[in-house]
Amino acid sequence: MKDVQMKRSVIRFENGKAEQVEDHIVTEQPVTVKINGEEFVTMVCTPEYIEDMVIGYLASEGVIRRYEDIRYLRIDDEGFVHVELSHINPFFQKLQNKRYVTSCCGMSRQGFVFANDALTAKKMHDIHIRITPDECFSLMSAMQKEAAVFQRTGGVHNAALCDESGILLSRMDIGRHNALDKLYGHCLKNGLSTKGKIIVFSGRISSEILLKVAKIGCEMVLSKSAPTEFALQSAEELGITTVGFIRNGSMNVYTCPERIILP
Amino acid sequence: MKDVQMKRSVIRFENGKAEQVEDHIVTEQPVTVKINGEEFVTMVCTPEYIEDMVIGYLASEGVIRRYEDIRYLRIDDEGFVHVELSHINPFFQKLQNKRYVTSCCGMSRQGFVFANDALTAKKMHDIHIRITPDECFSLMSAMQKEAAVFQRTGGVHNAALCDESGILLSRMDIGRHNALDKLYGHCLKNGLSTKGKIIVFSGRISSEILLKVAKIGCEMVLSKSAPTEFALQSAEELGITTVGFIRNGSMNVYTCPERIILP
Repeated sequence: MKDVQMKRSVIRFENGKAEQVEDHIVTEQPVTVKINGEEFVTMVCTPEYIEDMVIGYLASEGVIRRYEDIRYLRIDDEGFVHVELSHINPFFQKLQNKRYVTSCCGMSRQGFVFANDALTAKKMHDIHIRITPDECFSLMSAMQKEAAVFQRTGGVHNAALCDESGILLSRMDIGRHNALDKLYGHCLKNGLSTKGKIIVFSGRISSEILLKVAKIGCEMVLSKSAPTEFALQSAEELGITTVGFIRNGSMNVYTCPERIILP
Repeated sequence: MKDVQMKRSVIRFENGKAEQVEDHIVTEQPVTVKINGEEFVTMVCTPEYIEDMVIGYLASEGVIRRYEDIRYLRIDDEGFVHVELSHINPFFQKLQNKRYVTSCCGMSRQGFVFANDALTAKKMHDIHIRITPDECFSLMSAMQKEAAVFQRTGGVHNAALCDESGILLSRMDIGRHNALDKLYGHCLKNGLSTKGKIIVFSGRISSEILLKVAKIGCEMVLSKSAPTEFALQSAEELGITTVGFIRNGSMNVYTCPERIILP
């Protein structure tokens, strides 16, 4: 695997002058997962925590139901991840990439696009955590502080698993979903519970991100950016609190505000 | 199809007070492409220019080689796009999703992840356009001005097809690649040449974005954000000029600087 960033000579144009300077550039690595010998998926990612990412991905896609379904996992030097499973979720093979269509309007009212998502996204109707706006602001700024190292290279997404007191685990990736899969895989491998935990995310809350949060089993997602309407439909259906536009001491609560202690 | 944004009631917390306000939220729509009756792919996108997006996607994936390969295309109310092709590129079926592996190190030295990309990405070794840094700055600000309408909803990606004098066509989407597919599809359908044209993009230049630019047939990509190392490898191999971090009158030229007229 490569380093997560490398130096590169670039031409910098500034104040009307051009000069050769050294810049830091984030790296990407294609990772191809083979399951029981067969090519399954290729992802492009930031080359760290690959094992966790693959575990999190397989669980959130519904290929495995628990970490113990993985008999063997080995990453080779060429970026292939060889996985042997003792058990493949039988629903997965039937439903893979099948669109989840309801009788109503082609688009599920539950906010799912794929049938697998309806199986693996967890409903979060109990309340295990309640936080104040000030706690939202400090979690966001803690996440941004952790991400600072890579901010000079630009554009990497950060995701953190938190409770009300602070960050428990933080991961970054060039791919939005990968950062969340890395968190999830770590939790599965180490038997860490996600109950009552919060995801703090640097990017927009799209429907795919919202579903990842539900699959991980978190009941709240905080972002400095905006959600989409489709993500909010899923959030309402699944009982997830979404807070967006957390900037300069203000924020928007979009769904399930009962987990936010408002004045 | 839905509107590209809709109003929604949210709780806004600001200056220590919470109030119910109306906010604009971008919409997402799942679009499922069926080719000759078979489900092919489901994409989540901003619900406008769907036909162009599908045409651009099929061409950039190598499923079709020209617009004329499409005999029939119909979008139904449920978000299914029914496509009938007179001809499917025979290479496509053989290579679909197959990782492009060279003898060297598992990762292609050419900067390709998928074998199809090696077929559809065009090499841009001729120079049909040269621009100054000032032209880069004004193209970037023109693109940002066009995008302004949707900036309040946050997080939508914008892509514009330009020449040195300004923007020819501008598209936005919640998905990074979709915005580029919408540009490409429009050009294919209307027989517009992309020779000597420039892509201006709001987001990071990842390897996937760089390959899309090459597939569209543009020789230069400008972004206000950063490129990845893998994208720059592809850019060098394909002869594409990449300019990033275009902000406040400064910018970085990463590859093929011969198309930029430097002092």
